[in-house]
Amino acid sequence: MKKAVVKALVLDKVSNTPVVLLGIENTKKILPIWIGACEASVMAIAIERVPFERPLTHDLMIRIIDELSLKIERFVIHSIKDNVFYAKIVLRDLTVSEQEASEGVNPFIEIDARPSDCIILSLKTGAPLYVANEIIATEAITLEEIGESEEEFKKFVEDLDISEFKKLLNEHPEKFEDSSNEPDEPNDE
Amino acid sequence: MKKAVVKALVLDKVSNTPVVLLGIENTKKILPIWIGACEASVMAIAIERVPFERPLTHDLMIRIIDELSLKIERFVIHSIKDNVFYAKIVLRDLTVSEQEASEGVNPFIEIDARPSDCIILSLKTGAPLYVANEIIATEAITLEEIGESEEEFKKFVEDLDISEFKKLLNEHPEKFEDSSNEPDEPNDE
Repeated sequence: MKKAVVKALVLDKVSNTPVVLLGIENTKKILPIWIGACEASVMAIAIERVPFERPLTHDLMIRIIDELSLKIERFVIHSIKDNVFYAKIVLRDLTVSEQEASEGVNPFIEIDARPSDCIILSLKTGAPLYVANEIIATEAITLEEIGESEEEFKKFVEDLDISEFKKLLNEHPEKFEDSSNEPDEPNDE
Repeated sequence: MKKAVVKALVLDKVSNTPVVLLGIENTKKILPIWIGACEASVMAIAIERVPFERPLTHDLMIRIIDELSLKIERFVIHSIKDNVFYAKIVLRDLTVSEQEASEGVNPFIEIDARPSDCIILSLKTGAPLYVANEIIATEAITLEEIGESEEEFKKFVEDLDISEFKKLLNEHPEKFEDSSNEPDEPNDE
């Protein structure tokens, strides 16, 4: 699996649906994930770090996790079925010592989640987000034309017509590089 | 404090803001709480018990709480400041035995939350929602004209102009019964 970061949140003008673009670290690959309007609104607030007086829903969840001597270890977008991405949160139980862990006590708790919740929680906590290689291979898009700088990426996003883009991907998959042969990030699960 | 249940979710047509109407148990009092559009959308799904394939954000939170040997004991809307209601979630640590609790170990964990998250979690889990007496005294509205049946309440809500209603409350507080002298629910905190 490979680390991913939010590169942009855009609107698919045809379906009028928000799309979050995840950049796959050390590649020119982008994974687009279509999300709900409310999820996008919460994600935009997390991206812009808009301060709120009161805890929003994900802040409440983070507060509960903190209170319970748990740490978010990572988020993993691990599979796709019928065009729906599946993800999980990996929590580490901080009450399990290194000693106990080395003796076979599993300090990890895995919880099924939607990618949008994982991305929002990752933005808020800084815990890393990973994407499985099989998903990168079949769902990510390689953008040879994008330069390395943030500015070039911003320009690319402004020019982006995500629907045309997805159509192109579906109609001409051969235009997009297959990523399945790239070396893996270490899988520490 | 007194138990409350969701009676209706309506739209304040003037401010175009959703309002959740909480009925205070064994009274004819209604506590209106103005909430955000996305919170209302999630609440409506919880009220109607619309089934979803994937865990929504609050389902994820409930799943985390369950995984961690915790039980939601209750939700309490406890104060108001600058027109903002403050609430809390009271969790019980199930790993603390009755014996330990009787010996002084506190099995409760209290977490600051918004009323909307508490109401949504209460709808989804069935854990009870309470409102502090001081809030009922100053913020609830007594509806002498409402009958006891669900049907009469439905008709009342359909006829309701919540803005006019709130204006009336602010301009003529004497029209609304003060509840502060009513007997309390047992406070087991």
